[in-house]
Amino acid sequence: MFSLKELALKLGGYVHGDDSVRVNRLATLKGAKSGQLSFLANSKYLNDLKTTKASAVLLTKEALALCPTNAVVLDNPYLAFAKVALLFDRAPKAHSGIHPFATIARNAHIAKSASIAANVVIGENVTIAEHAIIGANCVILDNSSIGQNTEIKPNVTIYHGVHIGENCIIHANSVIGSDGFGNAKDNNGNWVKIPQIGGVTIGNNVEIGASTSIDRGAIDDTIIADGVKIDNQVQIAHNVVIGENTAIAGATGIAGSVTIGKNCLLGGQVGISGHLEVCDNVLLAAASNVSKSITEPGFYTAAFNARPHMEWKRTSARIFRLDKLESRVKMLEQKYNETE
Amino acid sequence: MFSLKELALKLGGYVHGDDSVRVNRLATLKGAKSGQLSFLANSKYLNDLKTTKASAVLLTKEALALCPTNAVVLDNPYLAFAKVALLFDRAPKAHSGIHPFATIARNAHIAKSASIAANVVIGENVTIAEHAIIGANCVILDNSSIGQNTEIKPNVTIYHGVHIGENCIIHANSVIGSDGFGNAKDNNGNWVKIPQIGGVTIGNNVEIGASTSIDRGAIDDTIIADGVKIDNQVQIAHNVVIGENTAIAGATGIAGSVTIGKNCLLGGQVGISGHLEVCDNVLLAAASNVSKSITEPGFYTAAFNARPHMEWKRTSARIFRLDKLESRVKMLEQKYNETE
Amino acid sequence: MFSLKELALKLGGYVHGDDSVRVNRLATLKGAKSGQLSFLANSKYLNDLKTTKASAVLLTKEALALCPTNAVVLDNPYLAFAKVALLFDRAPKAHSGIHPFATIARNAHIAKSASIAANVVIGENVTIAEHAIIGANCVILDNSSIGQNTEIKPNVTIYHGVHIGENCIIHANSVIGSDGFGNAKDNNGNWVKIPQIGGVTIGNNVEIGASTSIDRGAIDDTIIADGVKIDNQVQIAHNVVIGENTAIAGATGIAGSVTIGKNCLLGGQVGISGHLEVCDNVLLAAASNVSKSITEPGFYTAAFNARPHMEWKRTSARIFRLDKLESRVKMLEQKYNETE
Repeated sequence: MFSLKELALKLGGYVHGDDSVRVNRLATLKGAKSGQLSFLANSKYLNDLKTTKASAVLLTKEALALCPTNAVVLDNPYLAFAKVALLFDRAPKAHSGIHPFATIARNAHIAKSASIAANVVIGENVTIAEHAIIGANCVILDNSSIGQNTEIKPNVTIYHGVHIGENCIIHANSVIGSDGFGNAKDNNGNWVKIPQIGGVTIGNNVEIGASTSIDRGAIDDTIIADGVKIDNQVQIAHNVVIGENTAIAGATGIAGSVTIGKNCLLGGQVGISGHLEVCDNVLLAAASNVSKSITEPGFYTAAFNARPHMEWKRTSARIFRLDKLESRVKMLEQKYNETE
Repeated sequence: MFSLKELALKLGGYVHGDDSVRVNRLATLKGAKSGQLSFLANSKYLNDLKTTKASAVLLTKEALALCPTNAVVLDNPYLAFAKVALLFDRAPKAHSGIHPFATIARNAHIAKSASIAANVVIGENVTIAEHAIIGANCVILDNSSIGQNTEIKPNVTIYHGVHIGENCIIHANSVIGSDGFGNAKDNNGNWVKIPQIGGVTIGNNVEIGASTSIDRGAIDDTIIADGVKIDNQVQIAHNVVIGENTAIAGATGIAGSVTIGKNCLLGGQVGISGHLEVCDNVLLAAASNVSKSITEPGFYTAAFNARPHMEWKRTSARIFRLDKLESRVKMLEQKYNETE
Repeated sequence: MFSLKELALKLGGYVHGDDSVRVNRLATLKGAKSGQLSFLANSKYLNDLKTTKASAVLLTKEALALCPTNAVVLDNPYLAFAKVALLFDRAPKAHSGIHPFATIARNAHIAKSASIAANVVIGENVTIAEHAIIGANCVILDNSSIGQNTEIKPNVTIYHGVHIGENCIIHANSVIGSDGFGNAKDNNGNWVKIPQIGGVTIGNNVEIGASTSIDRGAIDDTIIADGVKIDNQVQIAHNVVIGENTAIAGATGIAGSVTIGKNCLLGGQVGISGHLEVCDNVLLAAASNVSKSITEPGFYTAAFNARPHMEWKRTSARIFRLDKLESRVKMLEQKYNETE
């Protein structure tokens, strides 16, 4: 329960209206009831603002005129919302210590303030730093390390030789350090596995979504730089390098030895083919397929919006007889030139 | 082992041929041997019907003329097959009770008839209803609830504040309630995590495939309505709402705050961009990309069938010089108009 | 630490330069330091060869002229690299025996030399053959079998009735044998689950990536033949059959009852619709969508490379007014014919 006065102070804004009003929950503009706080960060929701029942709204000066209730006025309401949500978050907190059902190699180093939940299995020579939290049923194999304040959610598998920095979050059932997909054909046409002897190095302040997989390097490490945010169901192949603060949305696949720059935004279901480079500050729309390196910052796309099936079918047919249309135009041009 | 007479009675059909014949196994039309039962539900397999060695076939009146053996004649052979397969299913049955290697918070409520397998970890204030089955090595965090007769297969992670209804099946290694992908940029260009304080609400009779992930809501819950069927490797982002009886095939990705109506069918690898709406009764072909809301029921598509590489390359090149072709046509039109 | 003489002997090549030189690590051409061994298997990296600091390089006779250091000359440097990497691999080795925290049904058959890690759960009548390795927190349900020398990495779920051959590797958090996505509509428009009573049969020398899912068959088994290599995040639906030595890259989805031939290569994010056949020796480029059977070997494609957004938008608009362009050309043709 916070007063608007307190919130404005914490968030660096000012109150328009009654600063003694107290709020006890966050809510969307549409769903908010009396006693609750909401926010406007996307102009799509301006209509919801006009009719909101919230007792207060976080918004910019520009939106104030349309606000029917108290407001905390700020430069960046979305960022303010991030800070406020933390105040109202009821996620359970882990306790320090090692659960008796954890299985930990004798020469592993577990910091005193770390939390190791039930059925965690930790291999030889693993280091778990202070205030790190390892969720139930995680497995961390030999010679890996987890930095301070990093939280690993349940059922995650971390292979050997994986190094994860500080203040990271790895969501449930993700896999870090699985073998890259490397096979050579022998003289009989059979595949021979290429042992993947590199590791994975993950920087600080990285978040990795649920059911995401990041392969270890074939020789050198796969590298995820500081501040990278990766969503669920993402596949990152061996020897990929991802630059600082790049964010990658769900179900994206990045093939082996791709290098992605800093501050890129990849939409969902993006695919990047092997051995390519994507420079800094590239925005890839959802479902984009990248088969050539991108050397200029900018916004790139490669997907069609779904159409009624018959329209799509006709258009698709037209595309595949474009050669005929080109020939017809050429023929007309020739005839025209002849008659001229 | 069932006689055709018994089966016809159970399934609401009638026997054509010898109703005393007994069948002991289900088989495909092509693979069936004497003593086995098969079915015809797709006209693609009519040729297999003509040569089947099955002792009996479930089929419609229309297909009877082509059937070389006994038949159980029904309106909906596929539905009948669903019922019959249950009779022949040999999946292991779980036993009631809590395995001694389960770790359960003292204030969790586990119904007497529920089955909790080895190495399950259950958090504070979790409720597991009668006849629910929690597979080995699952983790269910604080304040979540699992309804009657719901089965959670092994290695599933259910975060805190997730509510799952009755008669659901959640397949192995899925994740329900992971954090949505929400980050705001601060003034230094660094990402600030937006705590995801909503939960997930799943209705009754929902099935969720293996390795699928469903994120918790940012503020309100992510909602999966009654009767929804979701396949493997699907990503459902925060605040998605999916209407009753909608079915979603594998490897599909649905971005944040998307609302999908009732009775929709989404093919595999479909992608839907954030904040869109898809109305009831929409059929999306496999690999469709949706970047605008769909407001009319119908069948939508957005993918090309793979072509021989050189044909694709030439066509692709033609597409990207369409501007030139348009100019050439325009030029011809002008010339024609001038000469006229 | 190996001398070049030893390596040449093991690999079936010859040394160019000083065969007494010893190498203690593998490295990329670019990253190699003195005392390290590198290799050239892709002409993309010829420039790196010219400036490498490696003490020796595995390469073909053709590349020798550009090599500034000692070389081991071979027909297939990539295959040689595969063999050498094994020599330098430091992955932890599992110990034989059953961990005391494993939960194993009384009538399961565990070979003496097998390794069963902590928190593994093994069901009734499961067979684990000699030298098989079951990683921590794996679950293997009733009536399944794991062949000799096969390794299952941590947190994998194997359902009942799954048979995996010899010398396979299944990476972490994968799921084998989950229910296929089969539902029939009843007369009220509600889904009725079709029990999936088939299993999964996996041959020898198969590798399956992390977070991949392979569904059990509806009636017959899903079949993965000898030598198949499957990457991470792949979805293989019920009753799929994959032929020998076919390799499937990450994030690919294969729908139900698809049959894929031998020696195919599927790029990342490929999608194949249900009930189709793909013949032997087909190469599918990344992101290809297959909606018709492929009956001729060859290289197939169906994806556009991402373009600057405005270019894509204009081209996309042109495509969807191709009908108008065709009409304009037709009109010109008619006018020309009239004037002629």
